[in-house]
Amino acid sequence: MVDDGCIFCTIVHGRADASIVHEDESVIAFMDLRPVNPGHLLVVPKTHSVGLEDLPEDVGVQVWKVAHRLGRALRRSGLRCEGVNLLLADGEAAFQEVFHVHLHVIPRFTGDPFRIGSDWRVHEREQLDEASAAVRGGLAALDSLQR
Amino acid sequence: MVDDGCIFCTIVHGRADASIVHEDESVIAFMDLRPVNPGHLLVVPKTHSVGLEDLPEDVGVQVWKVAHRLGRALRRSGLRCEGVNLLLADGEAAFQEVFHVHLHVIPRFTGDPFRIGSDWRVHEREQLDEASAAVRGGLAALDSLQR
Ligand SMILES: [Zn+2]
Ligand SMILES: [Zn+2]
Repeated sequence: MVDDGCIFCTIVHGRADASIVHEDESVIAFMDLRPVNPGHLLVVPKTHSVGLEDLPEDVGVQVWKVAHRLGRALRRSGLRCEGVNLLLADGEAAFQEVFHVHLHVIPRFTGDPFRIGSDWRVHEREQLDEASAAVRGGLAALDSLQR
Repeated sequence: MVDDGCIFCTIVHGRADASIVHEDESVIAFMDLRPVNPGHLLVVPKTHSVGLEDLPEDVGVQVWKVAHRLGRALRRSGLRCEGVNLLLADGEAAFQEVFHVHLHVIPRFTGDPFRIGSDWRVHEREQLDEASAAVRGGLAALDSLQR
């Protein structure tokens, strides 16, 4: 299904310019227009999914496989690549800007402009165990949904 | 193989504390000690791999599947979660700090302390096509390696 307002669907259907590096049955990969560094790629499922919630598991696996391969290809590309970040933003609160799920594959080198920040405070084991119990509750809720 | 200096191998082998939410044949998932937000998880292959380069494809797929599931579980956990980031840091230049490959699953909400920065400049199509050709060269190099 094509979402008419979706730039990634437009690229998938060949109706917008893109610098494509990979295409298979379920996934396409092309250069990010606003790369952190030259070689910054987006791996995108061909069928419109907004995020992790509506992304079929098998399509997600193919997105991952292509990203894994592209991360290794970047190190053999001749582009500056001392490291690689994979990044997925699911939801506006997670900085998603295009609402067609995509996995960034970003070549990195020392001194490049990419920055990640947080408060990085160590939490107590009790807090971690509480969060862990909550996540296990979420897994159980997911199981009952899929049963 | 256990890397003796590796904290994640130590956790995998039950010789260090961790708040574990998932364990299967090839993968373990537990709470990050320094969470961006409560619920921040790490998905870790049980066998020591440093990064994408030495991570077996099938193990990587299982890491991804568990992360996909945990991202969806976070939204059902009762923890604050309006969005999810998946993040992998491969190499020191990409901000990797523990050299046993791991995929972060980070619950996000508006106003939380996580920040991502770059210069986000739009690149010209010619630059993007050049990068694209270089990546395709890297894919070919990878193919010839695996043949
Ligand atoms: Zn779309
Ligand atoms: Zn290890």
